[in-house]
Amino acid sequence: MRLHVPLPLRWSDVDAYQHVNNAEVFRLLEEARIHAFWPAAGEDAPLTAVLDGRPGGPTMTLIARQEIEYLLPIPYLREPVDIEMWIGRVGGASLEVCYEIYTPVNVAPRELYVRASTTLVLVDAANSRPLRISAEQREVFAQYAEEPLQFGKRR
Amino acid sequence: MRLHVPLPLRWSDVDAYQHVNNAEVFRLLEEARIHAFWPAAGEDAPLTAVLDGRPGGPTMTLIARQEIEYLLPIPYLREPVDIEMWIGRVGGASLEVCYEIYTPVNVAPRELYVRASTTLVLVDAANSRPLRISAEQREVFAQYAEEPLQFGKRR
Amino acid sequence: MRLHVPLPLRWSDVDAYQHVNNAEVFRLLEEARIHAFWPAAGEDAPLTAVLDGRPGGPTMTLIARQEIEYLLPIPYLREPVDIEMWIGRVGGASLEVCYEIYTPVNVAPRELYVRASTTLVLVDAANSRPLRISAEQREVFAQYAEEPLQFGKRR
Amino acid sequence: MRLHVPLPLRWSDVDAYQHVNNAEVFRLLEEARIHAFWPAAGEDAPLTAVLDGRPGGPTMTLIARQEIEYLLPIPYLREPVDIEMWIGRVGGASLEVCYEIYTPVNVAPRELYVRASTTLVLVDAANSRPLRISAEQREVFAQYAEEPLQFGKRR
Repeated sequence: MRLHVPLPLRWSDVDAYQHVNNAEVFRLLEEARIHAFWPAAGEDAPLTAVLDGRPGGPTMTLIARQEIEYLLPIPYLREPVDIEMWIGRVGGASLEVCYEIYTPVNVAPRELYVRASTTLVLVDAANSRPLRISAEQREVFAQYAEEPLQFGKRR
Repeated sequence: MRLHVPLPLRWSDVDAYQHVNNAEVFRLLEEARIHAFWPAAGEDAPLTAVLDGRPGGPTMTLIARQEIEYLLPIPYLREPVDIEMWIGRVGGASLEVCYEIYTPVNVAPRELYVRASTTLVLVDAANSRPLRISAEQREVFAQYAEEPLQFGKRR
Repeated sequence: MRLHVPLPLRWSDVDAYQHVNNAEVFRLLEEARIHAFWPAAGEDAPLTAVLDGRPGGPTMTLIARQEIEYLLPIPYLREPVDIEMWIGRVGGASLEVCYEIYTPVNVAPRELYVRASTTLVLVDAANSRPLRISAEQREVFAQYAEEPLQFGKRR
Repeated sequence: MRLHVPLPLRWSDVDAYQHVNNAEVFRLLEEARIHAFWPAAGEDAPLTAVLDGRPGGPTMTLIARQEIEYLLPIPYLREPVDIEMWIGRVGGASLEVCYEIYTPVNVAPRELYVRASTTLVLVDAANSRPLRISAEQREVFAQYAEEPLQFGKRR
C-alpha cells in the first residue's frame, strides 16, 4: 500500500531556470516523510505510532543515502503535487523509503516528475547507536511495503 | 585532476537537528558546480570556457540524476568546507560530476562528510534537444577525469 | 475586507532554535501575496485580474520596503497558519500590503504571531519605469482597503 | 566604528526574477550577525566576548522587529557583497543592529543595495525573561555605536 501525500509547492522553490530547484525537491521529500512519520492531531498516521523521529525525542532518524532521477522539470504549480511513498526495504536498523512525485491529482494527463529513495537509519538519540527495528515496527512497515524502485539511469 | 572548491556554510543550512540539512547539501553541491563551471572575472576556470550553463545562455544543463551518501553529519562551521570535484564519466550528451565534501582545510583530522554524484545533460536552450558534447569539450573535461565514485551503501 | 490565506508551514522553515526562521517568515508573506495576486484555475482571486506580476509578464512588482514585528515565535505546525492580508495604502505607482499571521483556524486561543507590511512598486518590465496605477486597479484595490498597520515597536 | 562583513552569495539566493530574493536578503543579514556576534577560532570578534547567542547557550537573542529598504536589486555575484554593520541603539534588554549592503569591494562604482535594521532582545534561555544588558556589554557595544539608520521610504 502506498501513502499519498499532497504537497503544496511554494514560489520560492523555483529557481532562476523557472523550475523547482533540484535541491528543493529534497525538501519536498523531507516534508512528505514528516507528514507520513510524525503524528498530527486527528490524522490517520499509523507509521508515527511506531516511529517518531522528532528533535528532542528518543529516536533519531539519520539519512544514510539518497538517490533521485529527475524525469520532467516541475514548474510552479498552485495545486499540490501528488507524492506517493512506500517502504522498499527494511534492514536491521534501516529503512528505505521510496517516492514518486506526480502532477496534481486534478491535472490530466498524469505525469511522473521524479523518482527517489532515501535510506534512513534509526539511532538512539542518547548514545548515537543504531536502534534495532522491533517486531512491532516491522509489522506496521509491512503494510506499506512494495518493491523498491529500480533506477533506470544508473550506470 | 580534482578541483578544490572551498565553500562557506551558512547558519541557515543547519536545521532543527543542529546539522546541515540533507537537502541543503545539494545546494552546496550546486554552488560548487557553479564555481567550477561558470566564468568569474580573474579566476582560472577552464571548464567555463567550454560549458556555460547560465540562465539565458544557449546551453541548459539539466540534472538527470543524483546520488549521495552521508557519512558524517556536518555541523555549522565557520571555515569553508573543502569540496573536491571531478568528472567521472562523459557520455554523448551527458556528464557525471563526482564530489567529496571534507572538513575545512585547516582542521585536523581530515574527515569525509559526504560522497555524491550528479549526472548533467546538456540541452539546447532553444529547442530542448540534447547537445552532443564536442571534441573540444571532451579535451577539457579529460583534464578533470578520474574514476567515478563507487557508492558503498547501494543495495 | 481582508483576504484570508491559509498557508502550510514546512519543517524546513524551522531553524536550530526550533522556531520558524525570521527570514523564512518573509517567504510565507511572499507566498501569501502570490496566492492573492496570481491567478489560479477556479479560484476567486479578483486582485489578479488587475495585477499579474508573474516573471515574463508585462508588469514587475518590485519590493521597495518591508517592516515586521515578531510578537510570538512560530513553532512547527501541521495545520496551516492563518494569514490575513489587506491593502493599507495606494500611491501613484505603489501599494502597501499589510499582513497579520495568526495561529491555525482550528487552534484556540487565537494568537497573533507576526505583523508586517510590504511596499510594492509596479514597474514596466520592458523599460523598468514605474507604472501608474489605473482607475480600474484602484477600484479593485479599494475592496481590500483597511487602515495600514501601526507598528508599536518603532523608535 | 562599523564592522565590515564580506558575505558570499549563492546562486540559490536568486529567484525566478533573476535577483537575490527579498527573503534571502534577511538570511544574509542573519549570517552577517553571526559573523559579528559568534566566536570563531583565530578571529577578532570582540562582540562575541560579551554576547554569545548560540543555540544551547545561556542567552537567546530573539528578533523583535526588522525594517528594510531595497534600493537596487542584487544580481548573482561571484564576489562577496560588502555588509557594513553597526549598533544604532542600546536599550535596557535590546539592541538595534543596522546594516548597509554594498557592491563587492573591488567593484566600481560602489553602490548601496539595501539598508536594514534588526532589533534584538536578549533573553534568558532558562526562563525566557529579558536579560538586562550589563555595563561590560554596553562598553563593548559603544565601540560599534553610530547613528541609527533613518529610513527614507517610511510613510
